[in-house]
Amino acid sequence: MKALIFNCTLKASPATSNTEALAEVVAEELREGGAETEMLRAADHPILPGVTSDEGEGDGWPAIHERVLEADILIIATPTWLGKPSSIAQRVLERMDAMIAETDEDGIPVAYNRVVGVVVTGNEDGAHHVIGECAGSLIDIGYTVPGQAWTYWNRGPGPGDDYLDSGAGKEWSHKTGRTAARNLLSVANALSSGPMEAPEE
Amino acid sequence: MKALIFNCTLKASPATSNTEALAEVVAEELREGGAETEMLRAADHPILPGVTSDEGEGDGWPAIHERVLEADILIIATPTWLGKPSSIAQRVLERMDAMIAETDEDGIPVAYNRVVGVVVTGNEDGAHHVIGECAGSLIDIGYTVPGQAWTYWNRGPGPGDDYLDSGAGKEWSHKTGRTAARNLLSVANALSSGPMEAPEE
Amino acid sequence: MKALIFNCTLKASPATSNTEALAEVVAEELREGGAETEMLRAADHPILPGVTSDEGEGDGWPAIHERVLEADILIIATPTWLGKPSSIAQRVLERMDAMIAETDEDGIPVAYNRVVGVVVTGNEDGAHHVIGECAGSLIDIGYTVPGQAWTYWNRGPGPGDDYLDSGAGKEWSHKTGRTAARNLLSVANALSSGPMEAPEE
Amino acid sequence: MKALIFNCTLKASPATSNTEALAEVVAEELREGGAETEMLRAADHPILPGVTSDEGEGDGWPAIHERVLEADILIIATPTWLGKPSSIAQRVLERMDAMIAETDEDGIPVAYNRVVGVVVTGNEDGAHHVIGECAGSLIDIGYTVPGQAWTYWNRGPGPGDDYLDSGAGKEWSHKTGRTAARNLLSVANALSSGPMEAPEE
Repeated sequence: MKALIFNCTLKASPATSNTEALAEVVAEELREGGAETEMLRAADHPILPGVTSDEGEGDGWPAIHERVLEADILIIATPTWLGKPSSIAQRVLERMDAMIAETDEDGIPVAYNRVVGVVVTGNEDGAHHVIGECAGSLIDIGYTVPGQAWTYWNRGPGPGDDYLDSGAGKEWSHKTGRTAARNLLSVANALSSGPMEAPEE
Repeated sequence: MKALIFNCTLKASPATSNTEALAEVVAEELREGGAETEMLRAADHPILPGVTSDEGEGDGWPAIHERVLEADILIIATPTWLGKPSSIAQRVLERMDAMIAETDEDGIPVAYNRVVGVVVTGNEDGAHHVIGECAGSLIDIGYTVPGQAWTYWNRGPGPGDDYLDSGAGKEWSHKTGRTAARNLLSVANALSSGPMEAPEE
Repeated sequence: MKALIFNCTLKASPATSNTEALAEVVAEELREGGAETEMLRAADHPILPGVTSDEGEGDGWPAIHERVLEADILIIATPTWLGKPSSIAQRVLERMDAMIAETDEDGIPVAYNRVVGVVVTGNEDGAHHVIGECAGSLIDIGYTVPGQAWTYWNRGPGPGDDYLDSGAGKEWSHKTGRTAARNLLSVANALSSGPMEAPEE
Repeated sequence: MKALIFNCTLKASPATSNTEALAEVVAEELREGGAETEMLRAADHPILPGVTSDEGEGDGWPAIHERVLEADILIIATPTWLGKPSSIAQRVLERMDAMIAETDEDGIPVAYNRVVGVVVTGNEDGAHHVIGECAGSLIDIGYTVPGQAWTYWNRGPGPGDDYLDSGAGKEWSHKTGRTAARNLLSVANALSSGPMEAPEE
């Protein structure tokens, strides 16, 4: 099993990323379960605006698109800005939109039989909505979302600490994250053994 | 396989329901695939407000809760009001909220290894959001949402015809609905063969 | 100025309502500013499902509809369930949907020149989304939403205390609520002096 | 009155923009009402990721931030991608997030006493959600959203034509857009005459 984790922080490397820190808890459990994991910080790549899989010269997406297609498990890890997924998470989703029309040689949409999870951090309320927004977009593309395949961390009410600056609530977020990893592995395996077929044309 | 379809129209029987009409397309394909289906119009039952599985005297939910637990496949079928799932859909989701803490004898949450789909009608725009809202809530409870396990119908822009009053776009909605049914069956079968395990306590 | 506050808790009176407790902070500041306030617990009234202003025998909405029309300031106060406004909040919004087509003698939609605010409590994350959902629906109907005309309280991550059981973060929620009250009064006054006109037919 | 319209299409100039075409209907009515309008295509500017008003070298936002502060009326015009505002709309909102903490010399948040509207196009369903998402973010920052200060165009169900390729429904979208323009002007004038005051510190 291969897992690709998109870290959709607004900050390019090497800036510290709260989102990466929480996503790493999920990644570690995926590796415990035998998966190979890759953490990809989207802000480090020139992902051009657009809704095709190749927006031409200077576009960093085509190489990433290949890695998306190699991954059985995808995780969108994003901070919460104004209660919503980051602009970089939305950029990644927009570029994945083209996958709706991409199929393998048997006519099966490329996202079928792959699973997706969501990891959210924030210095304020919004994680459930971010999870719903990402899940809604990805089932549209064809990904399957396993039950409880997400975790999040924030404190409220009002603006507050970042994940890495606070000790509160981490145990819950980590335990929930480890469960998410196991659910992703379990459903990915189930779909591998009993795959979805091509949709009606 | 058993499938339970919640028709969350605001209208009690025997009023005609556009939502039921579109949901029936999905139900028929589920039966084609060997499932037993039940269409339950929530507005016909006294589902009391609350977030437990039994709100006491006069509550119609406990009997429905049993049927939810018997269903491998759940479908939330709802009209769109003010761009959102109906108050009756939200009532059903609220009552299902208690299932987060309900487990079988092995400690597995009762919603694990069950799948859910969404069917939406409307006289105006809003279906994608309704699908995302329902999917987000149900993965929280523990249901798995298969890729493309939804269909919808509306016309835009602005207020317009109801589903049963219009011929436009039905072919797309029906084809998408049949695919949703097959994806629900396929993933339900996969989870039956390779089930999710109990989460970390 | 008259203000009507819909408490959309799932619990009928006399059960204690966290949502009412936080909404009362906003109400008190509205009274400080000279407004007359009314707290209406929607769960105490038989508000039938539907999208007209009178759903016939046994419907408690027509009397409430009158009070809505008397209020310059409306507040939707709601708990968060599964990250969304309560089913009772959605019921209230659905019944207000009919107001889109109701006008005064000059052809001005009845919701024009009225303002709306939102108060949210929860034992888990979700308030920003609830505020956005309510605001989105109410600007559709014709209400104006003043800047920062909301407050909320929740703690995270994961399920936690209710508002009345916790001391944390209340100061922020109360201060934000008092500002919301003043912004509602200010914009209601501005619209009273310089009202919106009838839309193009 | 000055109005700034953010066209948040994914396409840089000189590509044709459906969103601009519909937004121009609103702009024309704003000019009819005496406002000065500016259409700014965000994709033409290097708006760096971040949540401050100046992200340093190469950042195109500081100059745009000045224009935001000069505008009494703001319009977010965006296409719908995966049912959500474009990544470029979210980028603009993220950069405006810093305005929450920016005040004038009297301690009044810079967004107070300014109004915002939303214009949405799409080749599929999603506009109401996009309007709610944008409105929710902007009232958070301090903007006031007048009743019915939005318009949209899409056709459904399923993927379909773009706005400029279709004649259907345009009359409704244009009329609704002209009303939005008048409501924005009316409420902007009312707030100019009777402004909101500084919030409680």
